[in-house]
Amino acid sequence: ITSKLPDTGPSIFTKMSQLAARHQAINLSQGFPDFDCSPRLVSLVSQYMRAGYNQYAPMAGVIALREQISAKVVATKGVFYDPDTAITVTAGATQALFTVMAALIHPGDEVILFEPAYDSYAPSVRVFGGIPKAVPLLAPDFHVDWATVELLVTDKTRLIIVNSPSNPTARVLADSDYRQLVRIVRDTSCYILSDEVYEHMVYDGRSHVSVAHYETLRERAFVVASFGKLYHTTGWKVGYCLAPPQLTAEFRRVHQFNVFSVNTPVQYALADFLRDDHAYIALSAFFQEKRDFLIEALETTPFRPLPCEGTYFLLADYSAISQLPEQAFSEALTARHGVATIPISAFYHDTRNQHLIRICFAKKTQTLAQAVERLRKVV
Amino acid sequence: ITSKLPDTGPSIFTKMSQLAARHQAINLSQGFPDFDCSPRLVSLVSQYMRAGYNQYAPMAGVIALREQISAKVVATKGVFYDPDTAITVTAGATQALFTVMAALIHPGDEVILFEPAYDSYAPSVRVFGGIPKAVPLLAPDFHVDWATVELLVTDKTRLIIVNSPSNPTARVLADSDYRQLVRIVRDTSCYILSDEVYEHMVYDGRSHVSVAHYETLRERAFVVASFGKLYHTTGWKVGYCLAPPQLTAEFRRVHQFNVFSVNTPVQYALADFLRDDHAYIALSAFFQEKRDFLIEALETTPFRPLPCEGTYFLLADYSAISQLPEQAFSEALTARHGVATIPISAFYHDTRNQHLIRICFAKKTQTLAQAVERLRKVV
Ligand SMILES: CSCCC(=O)C(=O)O
Ligand SMILES: CSCCC(=O)C(=O)O
Repeated sequence: ITSKLPDTGPSIFTKMSQLAARHQAINLSQGFPDFDCSPRLVSLVSQYMRAGYNQYAPMAGVIALREQISAKVVATKGVFYDPDTAITVTAGATQALFTVMAALIHPGDEVILFEPAYDSYAPSVRVFGGIPKAVPLLAPDFHVDWATVELLVTDKTRLIIVNSPSNPTARVLADSDYRQLVRIVRDTSCYILSDEVYEHMVYDGRSHVSVAHYETLRERAFVVASFGKLYHTTGWKVGYCLAPPQLTAEFRRVHQFNVFSVNTPVQYALADFLRDDHAYIALSAFFQEKRDFLIEALETTPFRPLPCEGTYFLLADYSAISQLPEQAFSEALTARHGVATIPISAFYHDTRNQHLIRICFAKKTQTLAQAVERLRKVV
Repeated sequence: ITSKLPDTGPSIFTKMSQLAARHQAINLSQGFPDFDCSPRLVSLVSQYMRAGYNQYAPMAGVIALREQISAKVVATKGVFYDPDTAITVTAGATQALFTVMAALIHPGDEVILFEPAYDSYAPSVRVFGGIPKAVPLLAPDFHVDWATVELLVTDKTRLIIVNSPSNPTARVLADSDYRQLVRIVRDTSCYILSDEVYEHMVYDGRSHVSVAHYETLRERAFVVASFGKLYHTTGWKVGYCLAPPQLTAEFRRVHQFNVFSVNTPVQYALADFLRDDHAYIALSAFFQEKRDFLIEALETTPFRPLPCEGTYFLLADYSAISQLPEQAFSEALTARHGVATIPISAFYHDTRNQHLIRICFAKKTQTLAQAVERLRKVV
């Protein structure tokens, strides 16, 4: 078999979550909450199932849900996406990302992404014969060097993937970043894929800036969002993709043959919930408290936290105690100290060692406290 | 935008279901039941949600479900697929089909399929730069001319897609067909994608024959199945893919970046249900009764049913009353007579008119009776 992804094994999330299970470690690796979603949301899904909403949803998503998404996007981003022609419900954000690449990338097309990058981007590009062009984010704050991006943009550049708040760097792009991006793409024909799944987790008074706020970007952008992150239901696998009608038409052409449609009762439940419950507005405050707890608690350990502006991930530097490569260090930390995290090297195409691990803090305070207790003993 | 699928609009199912809704027609087009799934299955999903099973499932699927799938496959196909290395749970059968193609098809690869073919096959092949090679199924019984297949198989043939019971022809492949296939692929390096989602709907004492029964096929085959068809839950979007370990490894390499994982509480519920409830054994008898009712009722109409050996679809010939092309005829039937069906031309890459429409009989007897009442008035 001629593999499309010869160098790709099970993803780092599978590896670390399995390792965590094997060692009964506290799992701060894969990004999911260890607390539960709203009981009302669960009841809504049950109600719709009992009422018989168990057959295929429309291909683009249940219209009631698309209308609520549209209203939410107006309320939070101040931009109108038409439910009929500009919003598609997906089987999670990952499927939306993959489908955008399926629709856009022809063999030989170049795709610019920023490293460290969420681990699905580059392999997905390669599945379609595209060539990932990795731009390293620069120390000390993982900022984008836009001059490098500008140099890389050519006729071959089909797509630029941005991700703010960024997994795993926990940094957010500023207005000035987006203005650079506008300037660079304005006279090109390249598209933007904006992974904004952590949009409601931004801290210290920041507000999320979306590519949708910039007309030059919006008109060429696919914006991907996630209900799993919004409502603590990562296992329900529902997300969506916003894009102008012409781009949405291309997206749906592929989407309909990839998954056709998404879980029906969950979509109806989300529509009702989204209409009445704007709890996601308080999500940043909720997670900021957890972040602050973790940062303060880490002071008693040899791990040095890096600044965290958004997402539910925090980078921690272990160079004070070990020079091991990140992968080896994470494995040892899981096996010997019972705390699973993600090595940042997993988000680079080349091996490099910055002595950084990613800690997921979407956990009960007591889970975080227990984990820190263990980290304190690492020498 | 350089479209991957320039000639593809919304699929025929989207079109006809929308048209049915607009005209409040009885919808016998898209294949889904108008009766409900087991209340116990619904309760199980609710229980798992309430118990907090709402975060990411393992990438390959919940292990309890994979074990039950394995047991079911042993019980019904007499073949062992290892839950760890040979079974992957997918977001519906369509996603499994798409992911197989994503994993296998390189630009320029040829893929043999039989027409009329389920509408996702050829576009999915093209998304990956593959070239669909359509073999027409032959009148009067839509049989495969294996000599044609043999002529088409070359070094470029990556994949042969088979589908039995077949949507839309309602025919099943016989042992003699599979033996021909064995002979043809034995000394080649081409793979088999076997869409067996209607495996539990075979009539008149037939039993389903799977590619998995033939070692030469099994070792190179991806077998795709669907819980939506098994348990009347097409809207839950859970299916699976069986393949030998090496092929499963390739499948998962892509699967993890396409959807990553599938709805968690539904997977746990299906595992429990599958363990206790073997109601699918009675599925053929259940649907045969509906088929027989429909065939008999159609005698009072100008529509002539074709033989139906499997699936929940029946082809009907309208040439006695109209020479309209199938698409135009189906649209008129929906708009003017209130019965939505699928034109068979939608399953061919070229236009042809056999005066055939596909009727879905996964409906309450009263729905079928009402539809036939309307079909009786067509002149
Ligand atoms: C799709 S599993 C990974 C979850 C996640 O987004 C992360 O941990 O980075
Ligand atoms: C995925 S929607 C189509 C359902 C179906 O399999 C059919 O009607 O043929």
